Amino acid sequence: MKKINVAIVGASGYTGLELVKLLISHPHFNLAYAGTSEGGKNLSDLHPSLLDVTDIKTQKSEPKEIAKTCELAFLALPHKTAMEFAKELLELGVKVVDLSADYRLSLENYEKHYGAHLDKEHLKEAVYGLPELNREKIKKASLVANPGCYPTASILAIAPFAPYIKKNTPIFIDAKSGVSGRGKKITESEHFVNVNENFLTYNALKHRHEPEIAEALASCDITNAVHFVPHLLPLTRGMLVSAYMQINTDINAFDLLTDFYKNEQFVRVRKDAVSLKLTVGTNFCDIFAAQKDDIVFVSSSIDNLLRGASAQAVVNANLMFGLEESAGIPKAAYVP
Amino acid sequence: MKKINVAIVGASGYTGLELVKLLISHPHFNLAYAGTSEGGKNLSDLHPSLLDVTDIKTQKSEPKEIAKTCELAFLALPHKTAMEFAKELLELGVKVVDLSADYRLSLENYEKHYGAHLDKEHLKEAVYGLPELNREKIKKASLVANPGCYPTASILAIAPFAPYIKKNTPIFIDAKSGVSGRGKKITESEHFVNVNENFLTYNALKHRHEPEIAEALASCDITNAVHFVPHLLPLTRGMLVSAYMQINTDINAFDLLTDFYKNEQFVRVRKDAVSLKLTVGTNFCDIFAAQKDDIVFVSSSIDNLLRGASAQAVVNANLMFGLEESAGIPKAAYVP
Amino acid sequence: MKKINVAIVGASGYTGLELVKLLISHPHFNLAYAGTSEGGKNLSDLHPSLLDVTDIKTQKSEPKEIAKTCELAFLALPHKTAMEFAKELLELGVKVVDLSADYRLSLENYEKHYGAHLDKEHLKEAVYGLPELNREKIKKASLVANPGCYPTASILAIAPFAPYIKKNTPIFIDAKSGVSGRGKKITESEHFVNVNENFLTYNALKHRHEPEIAEALASCDITNAVHFVPHLLPLTRGMLVSAYMQINTDINAFDLLTDFYKNEQFVRVRKDAVSLKLTVGTNFCDIFAAQKDDIVFVSSSIDNLLRGASAQAVVNANLMFGLEESAGIPKAAYVP
Amino acid sequence: MKKINVAIVGASGYTGLELVKLLISHPHFNLAYAGTSEGGKNLSDLHPSLLDVTDIKTQKSEPKEIAKTCELAFLALPHKTAMEFAKELLELGVKVVDLSADYRLSLENYEKHYGAHLDKEHLKEAVYGLPELNREKIKKASLVANPGCYPTASILAIAPFAPYIKKNTPIFIDAKSGVSGRGKKITESEHFVNVNENFLTYNALKHRHEPEIAEALASCDITNAVHFVPHLLPLTRGMLVSAYMQINTDINAFDLLTDFYKNEQFVRVRKDAVSLKLTVGTNFCDIFAAQKDDIVFVSSSIDNLLRGASAQAVVNANLMFGLEESAGIPKAAYVP
Repeated sequence: MKKINVAIVGASGYTGLELVKLLISHPHFNLAYAGTSEGGKNLSDLHPSLLDVTDIKTQKSEPKEIAKTCELAFLALPHKTAMEFAKELLELGVKVVDLSADYRLSLENYEKHYGAHLDKEHLKEAVYGLPELNREKIKKASLVANPGCYPTASILAIAPFAPYIKKNTPIFIDAKSGVSGRGKKITESEHFVNVNENFLTYNALKHRHEPEIAEALASCDITNAVHFVPHLLPLTRGMLVSAYMQINTDINAFDLLTDFYKNEQFVRVRKDAVSLKLTVGTNFCDIFAAQKDDIVFVSSSIDNLLRGASAQAVVNANLMFGLEESAGIPKAAYVP
Repeated sequence: MKKINVAIVGASGYTGLELVKLLISHPHFNLAYAGTSEGGKNLSDLHPSLLDVTDIKTQKSEPKEIAKTCELAFLALPHKTAMEFAKELLELGVKVVDLSADYRLSLENYEKHYGAHLDKEHLKEAVYGLPELNREKIKKASLVANPGCYPTASILAIAPFAPYIKKNTPIFIDAKSGVSGRGKKITESEHFVNVNENFLTYNALKHRHEPEIAEALASCDITNAVHFVPHLLPLTRGMLVSAYMQINTDINAFDLLTDFYKNEQFVRVRKDAVSLKLTVGTNFCDIFAAQKDDIVFVSSSIDNLLRGASAQAVVNANLMFGLEESAGIPKAAYVP
Repeated sequence: MKKINVAIVGASGYTGLELVKLLISHPHFNLAYAGTSEGGKNLSDLHPSLLDVTDIKTQKSEPKEIAKTCELAFLALPHKTAMEFAKELLELGVKVVDLSADYRLSLENYEKHYGAHLDKEHLKEAVYGLPELNREKIKKASLVANPGCYPTASILAIAPFAPYIKKNTPIFIDAKSGVSGRGKKITESEHFVNVNENFLTYNALKHRHEPEIAEALASCDITNAVHFVPHLLPLTRGMLVSAYMQINTDINAFDLLTDFYKNEQFVRVRKDAVSLKLTVGTNFCDIFAAQKDDIVFVSSSIDNLLRGASAQAVVNANLMFGLEESAGIPKAAYVP
Repeated sequence: MKKINVAIVGASGYTGLELVKLLISHPHFNLAYAGTSEGGKNLSDLHPSLLDVTDIKTQKSEPKEIAKTCELAFLALPHKTAMEFAKELLELGVKVVDLSADYRLSLENYEKHYGAHLDKEHLKEAVYGLPELNREKIKKASLVANPGCYPTASILAIAPFAPYIKKNTPIFIDAKSGVSGRGKKITESEHFVNVNENFLTYNALKHRHEPEIAEALASCDITNAVHFVPHLLPLTRGMLVSAYMQINTDINAFDLLTDFYKNEQFVRVRKDAVSLKLTVGTNFCDIFAAQKDDIVFVSSSIDNLLRGASAQAVVNANLMFGLEESAGIPKAAYVP
């Protein structure tokens, strides 16, 4: 079978690197184009781990060039920049999986949190790329908005409880992420000395992933107020989300989760507490729940760069081309 | 001024080591007795960092020997063992600061979570050693139950909100601690490979610190249900507690905290998010709050071995002897 | 092409886990047998990261059973135990890649450092499995002694300089390894608190990998005295070796290394200093050299569990069956 | 006794912070002046850990102002800037402990490695502030050049072997330091993701501490070539140096070290391998040696910010004022 040519726009960051690694070993996709803002380098100059692994050269990102050879483009770009590329690529007939926030929210929420939207046309048709919720829509989509990392872990943990959450009670999400979630930028906050042997809260109750989570939960009929506080873990990779809810019926949380995800190959419901490390390197989302009285505590763990970004993006692309959902998607964690 | 002789019973563990370090440089206490289960070694054999720092020898712990020279004993022992020593020491006229759980709970709660209590007599008169709540009682006490680390951080964060928490709403405490909180024991859970680059939940909704927190909060007129989930951080030292509450009046959380602790020298209310590392090495509890609608998120950070155990114990001892509360208590953190 | 059935004996440790991960995705091998000392469990019970990844069941290791279905066995066992299995398997016609030390040394050196050898017969025919040095012998071997992790990194760094090292000058090897090199055993030395934010020497000048390195170097005509000091890094995975030598001719170390390894796909000669993390997750050995006067400093880095154990073992197995050397061998590192 | 007023010039960096912490609790010094390049802030704005610990305000560094109140100034400044301040302060009669490299080297070596020297006058009279080697000179000095961190650890390890090192054999120093040694600057190299779970060499055989070590060893009659390679450890604080030498007489390295340092209170000769963590938080230098044939391996560990900078600086100041050498100097490590 002839491979399908695909492009990465934004190959220099962490999610770009993960996309490269996934695509160069993918059975059905061929990485035909690796775009960066500058171009003209070897991928192994940007990512020294790729020396002798691939000899692909980067190009200055250019939609028209992409459209000449590629059927789909992954956008690993900052928001705002992403929608400029998406708009042009879609008009040129190239499918898009956008890893930025640009097509994840309703217009209203987007403009409240990120400013003016420049591609309202495509925003309407964008599909939120969480396969467990939207698989059939993704299959038919030209534009998939790849979910944020925190929303992915949060929604997969909470959505199964939709029918049982008490109306008008708040849902609290206490989330913790490794440093790779912040990308390659270098500020005081990413200095080793400030992260190592440390742990801290940031953007408490005002992180921009909160409305994304709320919108997605609303689409599952969960309209409770969602309160979200992220924390920074002193580790490179991985994310764990702890959610607290009040439930109005007698349920067995473990059975409910197990049943909800019985046909899913990338969600594992665990009897023992979730351990972040067991998902790092994979596309799995591990989920665990504990109960007491009318309280359900549910925690979920993902690799923020894979399930929370690049691997989920490739799963979405697999679906958009009618391929096997798990084609080229890693299941073996980095442990030990 | 002649120094007051004091003893440590249980000098071989982490909290024992911290007590040693605090007491050998204390201006008013003299470490006259360092007891272990075996005795007969130099402290620097047990704790190689103490080589050339102190030449105190350990003795096999023996209450009668302690009573001959010491006016107070710090018990850094497992629960159950602690109360056997406390009972005998108190009867011999030695004051006790007990770092175990043995005198922290009501009889009913104790026996529910730990089994039969062997010293009901003294349990009645034990004072819960959180100076910010019980300073005057501690001054007069012969037996102080030194609070657990999670309870210390949790109660200091939540107690100030007592008048404003909505009745019948749950309080959620999402707590995170470094590995030193588990002590020196070596099981699979403390293996470096299992902790490093990892993060996990344990004892979700069933940790034995939950009733301790609930009892202490009840003494502050907070009778809401408390739900507690601890997590293990991949770092050695320090603790951060995140609490979620619903509030029924319009308050300014920062002002309220600042006012509540205005006379306290070991609580710092921070305008910016709490950063665990800033308290490690000290007896400080740092607190930060964020608000949205009727929700208050409050987080607090302590050094689990100092404010969460040994330094708070020495503060209690200072109070019990009418000394300056801060005598010999560290304020300079280990940063960077 | 029909897959070749292979066995792992010792599937419960770290190298066993890595073998499982490599073999379940190998294009030509089929993991037909996973042996442990007990048997009777799912691999995912031993290694929770394998949940929903493989449903292979472990069996109590039994050579005769292995011989029924498998053409080759990987032995991930302690020394001594390994040779008992190897002997029997070889006699039953099963090829063996032994990851222990049992067949790496001359009889004399083995018995000096490990005690009596129980399979002198096969020891004679064992091939030291460092493909860059012994590729042709490995292809014909029935028994391959997979090199130790320190020796792999050390020999690949030093061997290219064979013709130029001054006679009668010592070679110093200052080696540093992550904690996974110690395996799953739990002693004080592996306690998180003792490793984290720490760094230490162990077995200075008396580690059992020293004679292994010396023997392998002697086979490359380097008969200088080798002095080896290992250190423990506060990280899970990876190894970096720094070697110091005196050279007697004017050479360009970078050019020499580049030329020496020009046909090797799993050695990368780097212009910039070696960075441990760039090899973790792969079978690469990265090498860098610096020079001043008659001194050459050369450093090399490998993943101790892959190039230093399991991936090199699979490379050896590939060679033993005439397969493509890189079949199923990972090249994409775990970075970031 | 009236306290002696002292100044810090350069209070915003890591060594500045350590100086602040040492001086605010010093029995005989009073921190009367905390200078930074900007001035006008609270120390706790620069160092949030100092909130409620000290209310000292920083001033824009100005030698004439310092001379009005202070008898000694600690310079925690970049090289070049340091000598501008030192020159002026010394001319105003203020004693100086300079933590930069500006007065550590001979003029020739300085100008080779750092460029033109601007204060040759004082360079001649500067004393190299390693108390174990130069105690009597330090007592009489007006200007002390505080040694670098790598040189401190290296020289203390190697100097005792002076009479026994084989002529014309090289000494190899394989050194490893935590990230705090790089200061607060933020480049790619200090990004958490690039340091964590990583280990690497930098400036191999060309670090500027090499000539400093060689000069100091020459003053101990060790004229062998010194070859120095530093590595970056994935930890915040601490340093371990491994040195390799050839010896020409039959010595017992442990006895020799023990005898050499028998009157020193800040050097500990250890029978077991040095463990970096045991010195962090203190002014100790721990030393361990192993021997085989004519080879001595010696390793030493220090806290790079304390013994390698600020605490050693305060020891020097103690000596310069005839105070007890250990006044205000920490001996209790941060363990666990």
